[in-house]
Amino acid sequence: MPYSSQALTKLIEALRKLPGIGPKSAERIAFHILKSPPQESEALVSAIMEARWSIKACSICFFLADTDPCPICQDKTRDQETLCVVEDSRDVLAMERAGAYRGLYHVLGGVLSPLDGVGPGDLRIRELFERVKEGGIKEVIIATNPTMAGDITAAHLAQQLKAIGIKVTRIAHGLPVGTELELADEVTLTFAIQGRREI
Amino acid sequence: MPYSSQALTKLIEALRKLPGIGPKSAERIAFHILKSPPQESEALVSAIMEARWSIKACSICFFLADTDPCPICQDKTRDQETLCVVEDSRDVLAMERAGAYRGLYHVLGGVLSPLDGVGPGDLRIRELFERVKEGGIKEVIIATNPTMAGDITAAHLAQQLKAIGIKVTRIAHGLPVGTELELADEVTLTFAIQGRREI
Repeated sequence: MPYSSQALTKLIEALRKLPGIGPKSAERIAFHILKSPPQESEALVSAIMEARWSIKACSICFFLADTDPCPICQDKTRDQETLCVVEDSRDVLAMERAGAYRGLYHVLGGVLSPLDGVGPGDLRIRELFERVKEGGIKEVIIATNPTMAGDITAAHLAQQLKAIGIKVTRIAHGLPVGTELELADEVTLTFAIQGRREI
Repeated sequence: MPYSSQALTKLIEALRKLPGIGPKSAERIAFHILKSPPQESEALVSAIMEARWSIKACSICFFLADTDPCPICQDKTRDQETLCVVEDSRDVLAMERAGAYRGLYHVLGGVLSPLDGVGPGDLRIRELFERVKEGGIKEVIIATNPTMAGDITAAHLAQQLKAIGIKVTRIAHGLPVGTELELADEVTLTFAIQGRREI
């Protein structure tokens, strides 16, 4: 664009690096930033800097939090014998929103993916085993995503955890609530049948 | 969210103020910012600050640019006798991307909208008439959006510009290229019929 401002082009390029932001959205957001009151863009800039500055991974569970240990690890009212293994911090927030789980977490930081060069050493698997070996944990719930990589990671962890005598469970796969059976894919339906429970 | 970090909540709230960003996208972008290399979030912060600092509205046409007058107003190879009136700076970029127009622009900064309290005094209408009265402009193309407010603004400007002897045109309304006639709404079809041209 011969007439486009250099600063604007830079801003649009920086915005396009954010997930889910295409060229049209980036342009729309950039002009919004230019036209909004200065306080609004200042608030955004300081929120980005403050978040980068103050949020760290908890040294126990690796959940991103303001404090270390994180508030979940510090909360002694939570069930200290159950550990839920998730891929990343957003999964912890999703679980907490659902409110159905009151134990502790362990954030892996991804899933095993040999094709992308992600091996066990790239995830917090060693730290998971250190926590489990310290004792106190009776059940590990593996809540990696129901994807190929998530399932492979779950199988890998389950095998090793069972070898040291820990009870390992996997979150249920099945039909999401509110959807229609005829729209579900075959794999989900297979899981739904296999995981059926008496009512 | 009892366990969510304060800094994270602030960041998500700031991101949600951006256009087209809902709660899920804001959370996704916030975690991306936290997990991306520091250079990436620093680049975003400095791009926002630089854009706010260096981009100003051109004092002639009100297009947002690094320089004043903007590069379009400075470009003497452009047709100095035609003025295209648009709602905002993004419309200038869209027109320039199309590459079909080589004249000058005038950015109104919105459209007349009595219900939202936007009257002629809130737009750059006075500045438009000052430019036109200075002489040299032979045709004003009104390219406000084909919405109710855009059409009312176009009618208002056309009436006053014609009164001082300026040729006023409106960009064509009709079927967008690549769409199907049967999917077009009645108003667009009416415009498409009324605006038909001999081939």
